[in-house]
This record gives sequence, C-alpha cells and structure tokens, in this order.
Amino acid sequence: MSLYPFLDRIQFPEDLRKYNETELPAVCKDLREFIIDTLSDVGGHFASNLGVVELTVALHYVFNTPVDRLIWDVGHQTYPHKILTGRKDQLTSVRKWQGLSGFPKREESVYDLYNTGHAGTSISQALGEACARDLMGKNHKVIAVIGDASIATGMALEAMNHGGHIKPDMLVILNDNYMSISKNVGSISNYLNNIISSQIYNRWKAVFYNFLKWLPLIGPALESVAHKMESSFKHFMLRPGGLFEDLGFTYFGPIDGHDVRRVVQMLQNVKKIKGPVLLHVLTQKGKGYKPAEADPIKYHGVTPFNKSDGKMASADASKIGLSKIVGKTLSILAETHKNIAVITPAMIEGSGLREFQEKFPQNTFDAGIAEQHSVAFAGAMTDVGVTPFMCIYSTFLTRAMDQLVEDVSLMNLPVRFVIDRAGIVGPDGETHQGLSDLGYLAGLPNMDIIVPSSAQDIIDSLYFMNGYKDAPIAIRFPKENGDLNTLQFTNPSPIQKASTRVLSKGKDLLVLSVGFMLNLAKTSCEILKEKGIEVTLVDLFWLRPFDKSTIEALLDEVNHFVILDESYIHAGASGFLLNEISPKYLKKYLKTYALPPEPIHHGERSQILAHYKLDAKSIAEDIHLHLENSFQGDKSSVRK
Amino acid sequence: MSLYPFLDRIQFPEDLRKYNETELPAVCKDLREFIIDTLSDVGGHFASNLGVVELTVALHYVFNTPVDRLIWDVGHQTYPHKILTGRKDQLTSVRKWQGLSGFPKREESVYDLYNTGHAGTSISQALGEACARDLMGKNHKVIAVIGDASIATGMALEAMNHGGHIKPDMLVILNDNYMSISKNVGSISNYLNNIISSQIYNRWKAVFYNFLKWLPLIGPALESVAHKMESSFKHFMLRPGGLFEDLGFTYFGPIDGHDVRRVVQMLQNVKKIKGPVLLHVLTQKGKGYKPAEADPIKYHGVTPFNKSDGKMASADASKIGLSKIVGKTLSILAETHKNIAVITPAMIEGSGLREFQEKFPQNTFDAGIAEQHSVAFAGAMTDVGVTPFMCIYSTFLTRAMDQLVEDVSLMNLPVRFVIDRAGIVGPDGETHQGLSDLGYLAGLPNMDIIVPSSAQDIIDSLYFMNGYKDAPIAIRFPKENGDLNTLQFTNPSPIQKASTRVLSKGKDLLVLSVGFMLNLAKTSCEILKEKGIEVTLVDLFWLRPFDKSTIEALLDEVNHFVILDESYIHAGASGFLLNEISPKYLKKYLKTYALPPEPIHHGERSQILAHYKLDAKSIAEDIHLHLENSFQGDKSSVRK
Repeated sequence: MSLYPFLDRIQFPEDLRKYNETELPAVCKDLREFIIDTLSDVGGHFASNLGVVELTVALHYVFNTPVDRLIWDVGHQTYPHKILTGRKDQLTSVRKWQGLSGFPKREESVYDLYNTGHAGTSISQALGEACARDLMGKNHKVIAVIGDASIATGMALEAMNHGGHIKPDMLVILNDNYMSISKNVGSISNYLNNIISSQIYNRWKAVFYNFLKWLPLIGPALESVAHKMESSFKHFMLRPGGLFEDLGFTYFGPIDGHDVRRVVQMLQNVKKIKGPVLLHVLTQKGKGYKPAEADPIKYHGVTPFNKSDGKMASADASKIGLSKIVGKTLSILAETHKNIAVITPAMIEGSGLREFQEKFPQNTFDAGIAEQHSVAFAGAMTDVGVTPFMCIYSTFLTRAMDQLVEDVSLMNLPVRFVIDRAGIVGPDGETHQGLSDLGYLAGLPNMDIIVPSSAQDIIDSLYFMNGYKDAPIAIRFPKENGDLNTLQFTNPSPIQKASTRVLSKGKDLLVLSVGFMLNLAKTSCEILKEKGIEVTLVDLFWLRPFDKSTIEALLDEVNHFVILDESYIHAGASGFLLNEISPKYLKKYLKTYALPPEPIHHGERSQILAHYKLDAKSIAEDIHLHLENSFQGDKSSVRK
Repeated sequence: MSLYPFLDRIQFPEDLRKYNETELPAVCKDLREFIIDTLSDVGGHFASNLGVVELTVALHYVFNTPVDRLIWDVGHQTYPHKILTGRKDQLTSVRKWQGLSGFPKREESVYDLYNTGHAGTSISQALGEACARDLMGKNHKVIAVIGDASIATGMALEAMNHGGHIKPDMLVILNDNYMSISKNVGSISNYLNNIISSQIYNRWKAVFYNFLKWLPLIGPALESVAHKMESSFKHFMLRPGGLFEDLGFTYFGPIDGHDVRRVVQMLQNVKKIKGPVLLHVLTQKGKGYKPAEADPIKYHGVTPFNKSDGKMASADASKIGLSKIVGKTLSILAETHKNIAVITPAMIEGSGLREFQEKFPQNTFDAGIAEQHSVAFAGAMTDVGVTPFMCIYSTFLTRAMDQLVEDVSLMNLPVRFVIDRAGIVGPDGETHQGLSDLGYLAGLPNMDIIVPSSAQDIIDSLYFMNGYKDAPIAIRFPKENGDLNTLQFTNPSPIQKASTRVLSKGKDLLVLSVGFMLNLAKTSCEILKEKGIEVTLVDLFWLRPFDKSTIEALLDEVNHFVILDESYIHAGASGFLLNEISPKYLKKYLKTYALPPEPIHHGERSQILAHYKLDAKSIAEDIHLHLENSFQGDKSSVRK
C-alpha cells in the first residue's frame, strides 16, 4: 500500500480540487509526511515548508490557479506548492545542479509567477498584477503570501501604501510564524504579537476571572494585573488589525493556519470581498516534526538527517565558516573597543553573529529586513564616535545601493562593510548570486575595497578596518570555510593600505586574481608552468585604492595579462581595472575570466564554474590557446 | 531703518535664543520677508521654505543646536535653517557654482549634519545618531524633520519599525503640508488627512449641530450625514495617530505649524518625553506669499520673479523640455495602445506627465516616493499584457537597484525604463547627479540600453520601445530642451536594434560618443580637424546590445580611439565598452573622458564640465596632446 494515498492522486491542483473538503486534512497529512521523508533524504529548506502545508493546500483548493494568480514572497516555502503543481517526483533534485530550484522559478512551471528570493516583493507584484488585470478588463483573483518579517520591509510597506490608496481587488495572506517571535524584531512584529496576545487573552478571560474567584487571598493582586493586561489589549480588541486598516486594507484574522478546513472556509469568504484584503494566518515553522518545531532556525535549511531523531551529520570540527570567523573576530575586537556597533538586517544567524550578540547585546543592532535603513543608520553612527560594522550578504546589499551612494559614500562616512556570500552562492541560485558587488562598489566615490583571498585575510582586514577612518571600506568574501587550527585570531598580520601581493614572477603572463579566485588561479598557473609558460601571479587584495605602481611595474616585465574575477563580467572588477591601468598597458590585455551577463543557476560552485569553463583546467587551456594565437600573430611575443 | 530688524541681530541660533518668546513672531516675519525678497531676485527652492519658517525658528529656539542634532529630510526646505546658522549673506549664491548648496551640506556648516537630497533618510539617521549617542554615553537630543510624502517611503517606514521597537529617545517632526493633499498619494497620506478632518470636525461639531437645529426641514438629512462623518472619524478621535502608536512612537498633534509660540511650547513639552516621539505639525507650502500659497507646485523652485505679482520670466515658447517630450509622445502612443501604463514614483510634474495623467488617468500609476515598489510593480504588469513605461530620474532609480536585478532583469521582463536627468544635473548638485546609471544598468543580465543623443531620438525610441518585447530596455537622457518646430511627434524614424551611427570618417582617431555628449563631441572633432587630425565620429546610440561588428570594423581603420561619457568614470559606459570591444583593439585605446570618482558639486553643466576639463576645447587639446605623445612613442602611428 502507498505511503501517501491521498497525495498520490494529485498531480496538479485540479486533482486536489476533486477532493471533498473533509478529505483535506488527510491530504495535508500525506503532504507533510512526503516532505519529511524526502528532505530527510536529500536536504533543503525544511521548517518553513512544514509551516505552510495547510495554507498551500487551502489556496490551491479555493483558488483557480494558475488562472488566479498566486504570488509567493521569498519563496523557500514553496516546496508544498511545487509538489501540488506537477513537480512531486522532482523534489529529490531540489537545489541541485539542473534540478528543481529551492525558490519559485518561471522556467519550471506556469504556477510559478516570479523568480523570487529577496523579501517583500509579493505585494508589489500582486498590486501590479491586479492593476494590469483591471486595465486589461480581466477578472481573475490575485493573491500574495507574505511572512511577518517580510511585510515589515520597506518595499512591502510602500506597496501597501500604494494599494491601500488605489484599492484594487487583491488578497494579501500574512503568514505569521508566531512561534518565531523571539527572533523577529521591529514594531510591526510587536504589533502582530499584541494582536495574538489580545486574542488569546480575550478567549480565556472568562476562565481566568473565574479562576481568580477561587483564590480570594491572592485574587486582588492578580486581578489588578489582569485589568492592566485588558487595558493594554483594549485597542486590539476594539479594532484588531487597525494598523492594516489605517493602511487601507480590510483586515481579517488571526486564524489558525493549521486548521485546513478553517482556512478554506475563510478564503472562500474573503475572496468575495472587494478592494484590498489582508488575511492574518498563524502558522508554526517546522509544524508536525518535533525537532523542527523545537528549533526552527536549525531546521530552516537542512542537510540529510535521520528522520527518527532529527540528527544531521556533524560538521568537520576543524572547519569554521567565514561568517563565524567574522563574528569571532568582531567579538575579540569589541572586548577592547566598546564603541563598535555591529549592524545586521535580520541576519544574526546567517552572518555568524549569534555569539557577538550574546556577548555584546548593546553593540548589536538587528534592524529587521531593512537594508536601506540599516546602511543610512550605520552612516549616521560614524559622526558620534561609533565604529559601525555593517554585516550583510552581497545579494542583499543591492537593496541599499542608493544609501551606499547618498548616505555613506558621497559624504565619505567611514562605515565598515562586511560583505558575505560574495561570488557564486551555489544552491540558492540566481536570485542570491553575489556577482555584482565589486562593480557597483567600485563605481562609488570614496569607497575603498579589500578583496581578501583567505580566511586569515578576513581576520587581518577586520583589525585594519577597525582603525581605518579615511573612507568607507568594504571587504567581500564567499561562503567558504577556514581551518581553525591555523587561524590567528588574536595575532593578526598588519595590512598595508592599497597593497598588492606578488606570489610568483614570470615574463610570459601576468595573472591578476581577485579575491577567493586565488586558489583556482594558483592551480591554473601550475598547469601553465607545466606547459612551459612563465607566470607572474598577483593576488590583488586591494581593489581600491588600486596599487597602480606595483601592478604597472609588473606589467612592464610581462608580455600579456589576464584578470580572474568571480563576478558578472560587466558588474565586476574588470571594468574598474581596465580604467585604472594606464591605457598603454592594455595592448597586453588578453581577457577577463568572469561570469557572463545571464542568470547563473543553482548548483555546486564547482559545477557552475565548470559549466562556464571557469575551472582551473579550462582557464589554463584557454590562456594557453590565447598565447599560441598571440605568438602566431605577434613575433615579439616570447614563449618557450 | 533696516528691512529686517529682528533678523539682523541673528547670526547664529545662540542669537535667536536671546529673544523673548513673544518676539518670535516678529523674527518669523523678518525671516519670511527676507526669503521672499532674496529668492525673487536670485531664484531657488521657494514654497517649501516659506512653509517651515516658524518650525525652523522654533526648533533652533528650543533645542541647543548643533549639540542637539537636527536632521532634515530631503533638505530643499533648509533655507531658513541656513539663514539662522551663519549663511544669511550667502543666500544670494544658492544653487550657483561655488555658492551655497540648495540642500544641507556638511562642508558649509556644522549645523548641516548630512548632505541630503533623496527622501526618507532622516529617521534612519536620527535613529543611528540616537543609538550611537546612547552607546557613547552622551545625552544630547536628536530630532528628525520629515515631510508627509517622505515618511511613506520604504526606508522611513523601516526606520520607524526599528526605532519603535528599540525605543531610544528621539523626536520625529512630521511636517505635514496639508494644503498639498491633492498632490500626495498613498494610504498614509489619506490617513493623515483623516486625522486632520476629524480634528476640524470635532472642533466645529457643536457649532454644526446647533446650526442644524435652525434648519428643521433639511435637518434630518444633514444630521444623518453628520452622524456618518462622526462614525468614520471616531477611531481618529479615540486614538489620534494610532498608526504611529502601533509603530511604537508616542504621537502628539496635529498642531498649527505657523503658530510659532504654540510650536515652541509643544517642543518644550515633548523634549522631556522618553522614547521615540512623533509630533505632527501642519504647515502650508508657500505660506505668507499669496501666489505661492495658491500654486505651491509652480513655486516649488523658482527663477527670479516679480515680487509684487509673482510673475516669472516666461520660457522660450519654441523650446520643450525632454521630460515633456516623453509625456507628449506617450500620450500619442496611448491613444492607440490602451494597454500602456505609465508608472512614476511621485514625479508626475517633474517627469512631464501631467498631460498624460489628465488624458489617461486609468493608465497612470503614481506610486508615491516608492521607487523599489514601483519597479517590481511595473515588472508584474508585463505578464498580463500591459506595456509599462517606468518614468524616473536617474538619481532616484538607484533606490530600485535590487528590484532592477531581481524583479525585472533576471526574469527578462520587458519593462520600459525612461530615465530622465541622466548626466550632470546642474544646480541640484552632488546628491542628484545622474552619473551612475549606465554602469549599473550595463551590469544587469538581459537589460538593453539606448543612449539617445537628441530630442528626436527620444521620440523615436519611445515608439520603438512600445513594440519591443525582447527584454527590459532603458533610455536615458539629461535635463535638456528640444526644438518644438523641428520635432516629429507623429512621424518617427524607425530604429534598428543595436545600431550605431557613423557621423564622419577619418583614419587618425575614432571618437565614441555616448548619448548627449554628442554635441560636445562634434565641437571637439571640429577643433581636431582644424589641427589636421582625421576623425571618425561615432554616436553610440545603442549601448547594449553593443554594435560590435560596426565599431570593430571602424576600429580596424583608425589608429586610436577615445570614449566620451557623461558618467563617473567607474560607473559609466567605459568599463562595459572596454570589456565588449575585442581586446586586440585595446592597444588603440587612449582614454575615456568622464567625471572622476568624487562628489560633483552644483553649478551650471558648462561650469562643471569646464572645471573637469571636459569642455569641447579641453578635450580636443588633450586628445591632441595624446596623439602627439603617441606619435613620438610609436612610429607606426599615422599623423599629418
């Protein structure tokens, strides 16, 4: 007998809609089991997907997808959606090279309307869809599903401000993971918690007051507390969701998002209501799998695990992620520098800052998913004697491009940017690639840029940056590990501003390696040396200020040069370098090895590099070919 | 006798504080007169400055600036602030080359904390200042002044979400220009209007009901209306400012911002209150100068005008601004293409869209100051059959960098970007320069880019873009005029995708001119021809796709090439072009003429170009020098 009898009969949402409403809990049970079984085998986003099982079933049951337009925010919670829309059998390939994306993806399915990944886009997209529908005289439904952290991001609030004013028919589902309240920050999060608390209080008020009567001695004191609670909850009970009503949305909720029949019933009601509607649904991350319910952060994204006890393979204890190296180094620095502030846009965990936050809560500023605000906030701290370190992923820093320009770099405010996940990010894929930061950072007035090539470089750079006040400065590095046994956390090597490192010298070719491309560059150079080519290998280390004199002196001594940069070709270091190097040297320029200007899909970094012929062997062969051609075309070219 | 006896005695705020509170109205009267007198002579931002006379006086009177930190949002309303902080005599130089900036500027005064220009930054900066103050153990006050349109922008809402949660002591002044309500959009604007309406209603309710009694016949009907109004206002009266309270701020107001003593009194009260406070102040743009009160938009920024009747010199009737050319062309297109949507982030006037909006209100989407949301919104329209034109200034598009990447270009959604004020913007200065758009646009996967070099090009391009669905596409152009007598609005020339134009041919040098640099390039080429240098002049027209075959065929025939681009050198077309042109041609590359990577101050475009030796004569001379040197260094170089 099948393990998932109800799920087996569903290939697409039309199959789901054949079920009787009373059978939906059984469908949800199968769906949840299927997710647990599959992901414990192959890994992937986990806790958030368990949280939306019932909501996803109810949405596809009530709405006529894909005619009705269902738009997910962020999108790592769309595995149930993928399973119900024709991709059940492919789930084992999720986040793997040429497999299913971990996020919605238009190429995969007509049910995936947008390729998402960054937070807070769904209300804008739903509003755009609703206005376009009305302009074109169509009449389908438009639904956005957004989480409680995402709805507090600026662009989502902008969309509500717009939508609440022009009022097209649209439904916003606020998927409120009320179990993760301790992790969310911001007044909107507090507000949502107050709604829930007031509801719970209201429901149990009679029981509570009855209980008080049985305790005549301590009654009065408790009663006073009870009255205070009642008073503070009053406005939530009088006008639940008033904040959203003030923003022009009709508010319903909160409802239990794991009672699938209740959600179906509510969706059937609200779909008839005109204008913008917000339905507040309470869900629990990790729902139905005890270890994930208990620690949804640990089970946000999983490697394969033992289903019976939730145990994942333990990581190599000698390795430490570069993010954690940052957190550890900043903790050491903050011991003696009380004026350090660490700013993160809702990425305490991802940026390795948990330990820092625990040790230095007063020095830690988690601004929520608010990259724009965070950067201006960090800029403003510099004038008051604070040393702000802004820790952020490359892909999310783009959200704050304007603030980088206007609120930091034009004023030359010495904010220290610590840019994580730069380069190819691997399994997250196209929406998370960190392939543009060098290009736009190098385009900013005043911005200095370090491109470390090792874990130790990061530690040394952080020490340097702590004392550096000349200008805003950034370091960027990929998702990699360092070796705990060799790292010098308290004994850093001093850094010389604008200094480049020459690792080997040879007259045929100069290889200019940017950042963590260095290991690959080294291997390429070894292959070239085997072919008899003499190579000058340079680890750029400082992109800006550019160490012009060193590089040009080296260029004087070689016949050709190439650049290796893990960026989009037009958004990386190459354009900057070609403008910085004196034009007379450009006759020696052969090529920049970088990513082409197209979406770079998910997969292992090595698979992606190989696909674009950016692995060490391919690069070495391509360089060799160029040198051969160059030799044939130009007799002055020296080769053995 | 002096015209401004009370103002004369003020050089700095400490002088203002010597006045008795009863004398403040007289100070305000002088200050307002001084502004009207000076700006009618020299021009500048006008209506918004008249609106904040009393507020500015009250703030510097109550707070101990610059120890207490006063932060302005946007900042074109800081002329009264500049007058009171040592810059009264310099106001005649405002917005002129090497004169006062029209915005706050740190280089000018310690009272100017941030160089501003973009909306919605002040709460982030005030929060950063407040947190830094607390971390450093200081105890001064921090005040942000923000307008009713700016507070609805995403980053301001992010800052409130953060500040309302962590609750440091800080004051946000909401400067609500309630007279401009018809021009503002968004549910927050509606909300503020409802607060005001409910207050007015509440104040006059008794009078109103008494009045009803005198009209027994029509009384009942009116009474019913009155009760309806009362009901809808109820929650504003019960809990005025509840929206801000929900966001964690203690709300006070609204108060009359032109009653300086009332504002002083209120500031003295709220400065004692702990935690984040929002004070809602009602002001009127243009206050005290009738023509500006009647038409604050016309008097937002003025040229010199006749003080007695407010008349400004009329513009040359044969000229039409490029913005208006866009509006007019889109109006013509929308006559026959009902699926056109024009999207603007609060720039109907600035983008020349008033006429379009009046003719096609259903096709016009003013999203408020919400660049991020607008771009994702436009992207979402493309799937439903709508043709979205996103009209935006170059400097503001940076706000939507992330949405350009994630919500448009990676998905290849055919949004049409119409980018105004690209290049040097002149008197607005460093915070408004449009010198980065080509760099970041060229770094995006899939984005196509047209760089028109004339007004007619813009018309032709808009026709082309309307039918173009291959990819997102952008045109960019500066603040210039076209000649109404020669423009062909209904008879456009067809455009060939990725086509470059060759304007002259000569073997010595190829000049690659980007966009509206063309006129300057032509003059440079004429000077060079007079010196006997034979020039190939290319009007690039399409940056991307790059017309590689045409350009490389031309490069085969010349000895050298230069690029002319009105961008920051590292954020413009140069890096892209040097990567697109086959490396073998780079030996012919001499230089890119572009702006250096530093803040570019305000002044006339011609003054700025001359300062950076980017005028036609300087460029020609520099090229000539390069060719001379090149001739000496390389015998193969051909010259006469």
